[in-house]
Amino acid sequence: MDHLATTLTQLFVVLLAAKVGDEVFKRLGQPTLIGEILGGVVVGPAVLGVYQVTPETELFAEIGVVLLLFQVGVETRIGDLLKVGGTAASVGILGVALPLGGGLALGAALGYPIEVSVFLGAALTATSVGITARVLGELGAMASLSGRVILGAAVIDDVLAMLILAIASGLAAGSVSAWQLGTLVGLAAAFIGIVLVVGTRVLRSRPSILTDPEFAETPFLPGMILMLGLAALAAIIGLAAIIGAFLAGMVVGESSERHALEEEVAPVAAFFTPFFFGFIGAQVDLAALVDPSTTVLLAGLTLLALATKFGGAFVGAIRLGRQRAVLIGWGMVPRGEVGIVVAGLGLAAGAISSQLYSVVVGMAVLTTLVVPPLMGRLVRRAEPAIAE
Amino acid sequence: MDHLATTLTQLFVVLLAAKVGDEVFKRLGQPTLIGEILGGVVVGPAVLGVYQVTPETELFAEIGVVLLLFQVGVETRIGDLLKVGGTAASVGILGVALPLGGGLALGAALGYPIEVSVFLGAALTATSVGITARVLGELGAMASLSGRVILGAAVIDDVLAMLILAIASGLAAGSVSAWQLGTLVGLAAAFIGIVLVVGTRVLRSRPSILTDPEFAETPFLPGMILMLGLAALAAIIGLAAIIGAFLAGMVVGESSERHALEEEVAPVAAFFTPFFFGFIGAQVDLAALVDPSTTVLLAGLTLLALATKFGGAFVGAIRLGRQRAVLIGWGMVPRGEVGIVVAGLGLAAGAISSQLYSVVVGMAVLTTLVVPPLMGRLVRRAEPAIAE
Repeated sequence: MDHLATTLTQLFVVLLAAKVGDEVFKRLGQPTLIGEILGGVVVGPAVLGVYQVTPETELFAEIGVVLLLFQVGVETRIGDLLKVGGTAASVGILGVALPLGGGLALGAALGYPIEVSVFLGAALTATSVGITARVLGELGAMASLSGRVILGAAVIDDVLAMLILAIASGLAAGSVSAWQLGTLVGLAAAFIGIVLVVGTRVLRSRPSILTDPEFAETPFLPGMILMLGLAALAAIIGLAAIIGAFLAGMVVGESSERHALEEEVAPVAAFFTPFFFGFIGAQVDLAALVDPSTTVLLAGLTLLALATKFGGAFVGAIRLGRQRAVLIGWGMVPRGEVGIVVAGLGLAAGAISSQLYSVVVGMAVLTTLVVPPLMGRLVRRAEPAIAE
Repeated sequence: MDHLATTLTQLFVVLLAAKVGDEVFKRLGQPTLIGEILGGVVVGPAVLGVYQVTPETELFAEIGVVLLLFQVGVETRIGDLLKVGGTAASVGILGVALPLGGGLALGAALGYPIEVSVFLGAALTATSVGITARVLGELGAMASLSGRVILGAAVIDDVLAMLILAIASGLAAGSVSAWQLGTLVGLAAAFIGIVLVVGTRVLRSRPSILTDPEFAETPFLPGMILMLGLAALAAIIGLAAIIGAFLAGMVVGESSERHALEEEVAPVAAFFTPFFFGFIGAQVDLAALVDPSTTVLLAGLTLLALATKFGGAFVGAIRLGRQRAVLIGWGMVPRGEVGIVVAGLGLAAGAISSQLYSVVVGMAVLTTLVVPPLMGRLVRRAEPAIAE
């Protein structure tokens, strides 16, 4: 079979499995994205082994989560996000500090060298907002106060996680300079600030490039170009690509053509996102986890990941009341693909072993699977206005 | 820059270049797809060198042309195609025989070994119906008599081209068996027949999987799954993936949900197709073509490609009248990505040199560029009912 035939087969298999999982879970009344992830587990290396992760299927997964965050960005007003800036900052900072501390403490307790402990901390730190965004979107709660705090906190969280990752990579390579870290923070802040200020100004000017019928009938392709461009830029400066996509969505969402755009983005996102959830499922390596000591480590790390992220975000959000703090804390728990990427970087840097890699990936998947089933009840309690 | 950042940057650059080329050519009143291809030339290795062909960008290009043919399939009624079957067969067969003969004769005249000549013949044989389909679609002439003959002939053409390619590959590897070729023909015929008969029966049964609201709100994702599955199957048995996508489109197009599907497929196709045209442009290797003997060979091969394909298809279609035969002959000329793929296979098999590879790719791109500018006039003359 030639390369193209193999790749098309992989894409077919994972899309089919995710869709079947989605349908089964819809009928069971369970969160459909769990069905999509389990579809990926079934066709992935853990069970059938039909679907293998390749650079191409990984790219489709990445574009899937990029589109997911772009869609969330389009539905998010910049002003609404800035209004919750203070709370989002405390959620983001505490939600990073506790998992990092937890990772360092666990590493020290197990006698790991410092660079391994920092990688462990970085993997515990990273939040994947894609999962929570999809669940909140299905519940209609994306624009609620809790939803906006989660989004804002996820952006801050990602900037901090990038710093910790830079420290971890520096330690693994032998050195870390304050100058280097300062440059990273400056770049990230400049990127986010410039995109929001310049982007919004350009979009609101008349005629803007998006609303000019001479340039494009609809803002769809210009929007997609901006999404890819900012996702690439974010990845280049070391942020997660989804942060760039989220910013691009927020900028484009300021346009008066927002609704036409949303309608055209929806099918593209519907096509790509199952590849993301299927990919998460295909990362599960059951064989590596049967060893009892690995199972214990996985259970411990997952509990630590749950407790520290929930605890930090809960305390950061407590000023909004207990119900909302619980929802926000729980919504920040999934590590998803960001945790998997961090683990992969640690493996590539030679800092973490392949056994620890499997454990970290298992933790990332487990924290992702536990969140959706409880979200509906938490949203109804914390944001009764939305649950109607 | 890490791998993901590089890939996202490549996708951003080619989408931006194709869109800018599209806009420039729209303002000049020229065929926009030429603008998209030239956008690919500019950012590709020939000029700026920002965009490089990688497995990932190639996959996006391939999915682009797969979606293009899927869309064409959705708009094509199976019955309409079967009605023109006889003419399509004579266009397809003569449109293959003459280029193949021309390639073999040229190879013999230049003193090439037989396996090189057969590869040359195969590259001259392959029609890329994607280019013509896009132009006919923009002119609203896809469902015209000429449009249907071109589509039907392209399917037959591709089956024959697959056989020639199998012979060429067999010769390069040292052996060809009649049994092997018979199996290929049988497989291709069975694939096309089974898909059309079974697919249509399933679609027309009530409730079908596509119209069952329990399975999916819209036939969009089931349609995409079928498209990927049949494209993969076609590629596995050695046909072009686009033939599978075209069949999938025709099958799904029999559903009563056709219009809902078309609306959702449109943005996905609009996102992917620029990658296809940009990819064609990026294949142009200007540096390899400056050598005078190469330029002469390229000019000769391109003229041969034009004359033989036009002549064969023209004679095959002459029963429809001279104007329609001219349109059909001209519409079959583009070699596009199929010619490039054949050249790549010949290079990989060690049958053709890298100089000859550049010449064949140049021929494929040139035959693709010359067709769109004349199509508008030819359609107005051959199908006056459509030109209104």
